[in-house]
Amino acid sequence: MSSVETTESPAVPGLCVLISGRGSNFLALSDAILDGRLRARIACVVSNREDAQGLIHARERGIATAVVPHKGLTRSEHALRLLDVITPHAPALVCLAGYMRLLAPEFIRAFPNRILNIHPSLLPAFTGLDAQKQALEYGVRVTGCTVHLVDEELDHGPVVAQAAVTVQDADDEASLAARILAQEHKLYAEAVEKLLHHPWEIRGRRVIFSNPSH
Amino acid sequence: MSSVETTESPAVPGLCVLISGRGSNFLALSDAILDGRLRARIACVVSNREDAQGLIHARERGIATAVVPHKGLTRSEHALRLLDVITPHAPALVCLAGYMRLLAPEFIRAFPNRILNIHPSLLPAFTGLDAQKQALEYGVRVTGCTVHLVDEELDHGPVVAQAAVTVQDADDEASLAARILAQEHKLYAEAVEKLLHHPWEIRGRRVIFSNPSH
Repeated sequence: MSSVETTESPAVPGLCVLISGRGSNFLALSDAILDGRLRARIACVVSNREDAQGLIHARERGIATAVVPHKGLTRSEHALRLLDVITPHAPALVCLAGYMRLLAPEFIRAFPNRILNIHPSLLPAFTGLDAQKQALEYGVRVTGCTVHLVDEELDHGPVVAQAAVTVQDADDEASLAARILAQEHKLYAEAVEKLLHHPWEIRGRRVIFSNPSH
Repeated sequence: MSSVETTESPAVPGLCVLISGRGSNFLALSDAILDGRLRARIACVVSNREDAQGLIHARERGIATAVVPHKGLTRSEHALRLLDVITPHAPALVCLAGYMRLLAPEFIRAFPNRILNIHPSLLPAFTGLDAQKQALEYGVRVTGCTVHLVDEELDHGPVVAQAAVTVQDADDEASLAARILAQEHKLYAEAVEKLLHHPWEIRGRRVIFSNPSH
C-alpha cells in the first residue's frame, strides 16, 4: 500500500480506479482530467494484480497506487482489505476499469450508487466476459458500450451512458473490440464528468439528469 | 381473398406483407418503392384482422389484399390458409409489418430465410411486446430497431440491419416509440433492398453481404 500524496485542491472530487490489467480506461480518465474535460482527480489506482500494467502508468503520472491481492482470500475478506485502502480517500466515485473480479456486497454497500463500471456492449445485451465476441456471434449490426452504476448483480445496475458502435461485415473480435474501446475511452470520462457535476437521481432504474448537458 | 392483378414486370421481386393493424411499415415499404429507393413490388398485403387499417391504404394504392382470420383456427391451420394465399404470389420475401401473431413452423419452413420482421429494439435486448416500454424501464440510453430473418423462436433469427436511437431524459413510451418508428420506416426499406439486390449469406448467425453497399 503506497502513501497518498496529492497537491490538488480537496474541492476537486476524487476518484478511486480499480484495475486488473493495462487499465486503458484509467488512462482515458486521467487524460480527460489533464485535458480539462473531466473535473476530478484520481486519488488512487488499486489493482488486485501486482503485475497490472496500469500501475506503471499510474506511478509515471504521480498517482498513488495500491495492490490488494485476492489470492487465498474469500470475496468478503478481499472486500474488507479493499475498503481499508479506499475508504481513507473518501472517493466521490469508485471507477472500475477492467477490474476482473466480482465485488462483494460489503464493498458495494459501502459506496451506494457511487461505483461505476464500463462494459463493452449495449447492456442488457451481452453481459459477462467476451461481450464483443458474443455480439459478433449473435450477428448484431449495432453494439457499443455502457457505463453503469454497480449493484450486486453482474453488469446489471442503472445505466448512466451508452454509445453505439456499428459492426462491419469484415469485423473480427479484435477490430470490433478496438472500435468499442475507442468509444469507451470517450464515454467513461463524459459519464463521470456528468455524474460529478450535474444533479441526477434514480427513478426506477433510470438515471435522470435534471439539468442534462446533452 | 381478393384477386391478384399486377401490371409490374415479373422481373421485379415481389413482396408479401403481413399486417394486423395500421401497417405503417407496409406503407414505408410502399413509399420506398414509389420513391425508387426499393426495387420491388408489393404482390399482396395480408391481414389476420379484417379491420386492419393498413388494408384500406393498400386498396387505395391498388395493391391486392387478403384477410385470413385466425379466430377458431389452430396456429397450424391458420398457417396453411396463409400459405394458400401467399404461395401463388411466389414472393421473394415475406415481410411482417406489425403482424401480431406467431407464425407456425409450417409457414416459416415454407420460406426459409425469406421471412423478415422488424422489431422496435436492438435485439437481443427487449424481445416480445412493448419493447420500447421495456427499454425505458431498464433505463437504457441507446435503443433502436432491428430487421431480422424470422426463425421458429420469437424475435430471434439472424439480424439483417439495426439502427440506434438515443433515449432522452424526457422520453415517455410514446415519444420514444415515435422516434424508433421513424427509424424503422427507413431501415426496413434499406434492409429489403439490400437483401433483394446484394449477394449475402449466413455464417453462423451473421448475415454477411459479400458486396456491401454500406
